[in-house]
Amino acid sequence: MNRTELIAQIKNKKTFLCVGLDPDLEKIPKHLIQNEKDIIFEFNKQIIDATAPYCVSFKPNNAFYEVYGLSGIESLEKTIKYIKTNYPSHFLIADAKRGDIGNTSTMYAKAWLQNLGADAITVAPYMGSDSVKPFLKFENKWAVILGLTSNEGSVDFQQQKVGSRELYLEVIEKCAAWGTENNMMFVVGATKAEMFRGIRKIIPDHFLLVPGVGAQGGNLQEVCKYGLNKDIGLLVNSSRGIIYASSEKNFAEMAAEEAKKIANEMKEIIKNI
Amino acid sequence: MNRTELIAQIKNKKTFLCVGLDPDLEKIPKHLIQNEKDIIFEFNKQIIDATAPYCVSFKPNNAFYEVYGLSGIESLEKTIKYIKTNYPSHFLIADAKRGDIGNTSTMYAKAWLQNLGADAITVAPYMGSDSVKPFLKFENKWAVILGLTSNEGSVDFQQQKVGSRELYLEVIEKCAAWGTENNMMFVVGATKAEMFRGIRKIIPDHFLLVPGVGAQGGNLQEVCKYGLNKDIGLLVNSSRGIIYASSEKNFAEMAAEEAKKIANEMKEIIKNI
Repeated sequence: MNRTELIAQIKNKKTFLCVGLDPDLEKIPKHLIQNEKDIIFEFNKQIIDATAPYCVSFKPNNAFYEVYGLSGIESLEKTIKYIKTNYPSHFLIADAKRGDIGNTSTMYAKAWLQNLGADAITVAPYMGSDSVKPFLKFENKWAVILGLTSNEGSVDFQQQKVGSRELYLEVIEKCAAWGTENNMMFVVGATKAEMFRGIRKIIPDHFLLVPGVGAQGGNLQEVCKYGLNKDIGLLVNSSRGIIYASSEKNFAEMAAEEAKKIANEMKEIIKNI
Repeated sequence: MNRTELIAQIKNKKTFLCVGLDPDLEKIPKHLIQNEKDIIFEFNKQIIDATAPYCVSFKPNNAFYEVYGLSGIESLEKTIKYIKTNYPSHFLIADAKRGDIGNTSTMYAKAWLQNLGADAITVAPYMGSDSVKPFLKFENKWAVILGLTSNEGSVDFQQQKVGSRELYLEVIEKCAAWGTENNMMFVVGATKAEMFRGIRKIIPDHFLLVPGVGAQGGNLQEVCKYGLNKDIGLLVNSSRGIIYASSEKNFAEMAAEEAKKIANEMKEIIKNI
């Protein structure tokens, strides 16, 4: 999906919500576990169908499939195919945080962007240019680089000073020069809303993928205050807060309610853009 | 595998070679591609059998399996099982470069260290403490943290100064404090041999996993000069230089020759330790 299409989606639907698909068998409603063969896919399918009207993007998190071995990967492939077939205008982000030396990153890029057909993949930047660039070589596909993450550990390295500024600003500026706002986004955690200001000075036009709203404590109003740009420029992700809103038989309905709540808040915030 | 067992292996066999298993269908000998059902597993199996006498470790690189989808992951699982069954005293490193917020890293750790049963997994440190610590919670298992990598891009961030020293030294010192020399190693590229000196000042006792010897241009003598410690303390990896030594029918024999050459060089270097 290209930038124009993504922006059109967001402006039409008045939402920039991304629903994170992190299926955990310990949290999935018991009735699915008792009755379904592919529990994870069935859970995802119901969540996707219920929340699709309120979001513009889905983000399956690779770890939550990999942990179930081959059958987990099979559920992930089915989930991706289901989204691509039934919701082709939803932006599909593979949250895999890959990154390696050039020839290995090329393999990861092929795996996720070409073979599985995700629109985007999250990329860890520590190994530098040749680890990032292979993800930028596919038309209308995106690398979503870890800039400033939403977790506690972001203080350990990302917020350390490199020269006069923090490492995450160095990472964002350098990576931005390897791509364009048409093939690169950055992860910026919602728990660090006041830091969006400095980031927007460096990359006014790039989309930011913002985790950490909800379960991790981030605040949507704050994020929007500093993060929005003329094209909206944000994809705000919520995973646990939406998909585990209920563990009862009406879990999908409750997930939709949660997604709708956030979408309504978004609509109100961007009504004048 | 614990540290004592690993050191005993190395001292008994007089080699600290790790063979990297990066199967690429464009490089695998044609006769295997024509005749075998699970080409990747068959290639790996022959490489493993041929090189096992000359190495103490195998390192499958996740990307080279993931790119072939479910069947690639199946080949990877079979390869891991084959090593664990037939070469249980070889140290098995999953080169997956994972790392995410705490609950997600926990899933990755379970997937690779518990379910697949690898001895170690490579971990990307950019997200800090809670992204690293979940990999340290399994008895006799190891996290191998990216310190200073062997690729060009290591100059972009790793070699930037954080305060008075380079980021990679900051990463190594901070991460080392989260674990011990019994559950943590660091990746240090062979292409940066002179930098081993500074690293050994911070972590004299830790094992270092050293890629970049051979195809990437690193020099074994140099690496050993600065990197060896009283327990040897090095696992030197070679992938392409060994496994693609030949594309003829005798490819496994030629891979063994290459491995033997490196092992002999190692034997000579460590004869007095």
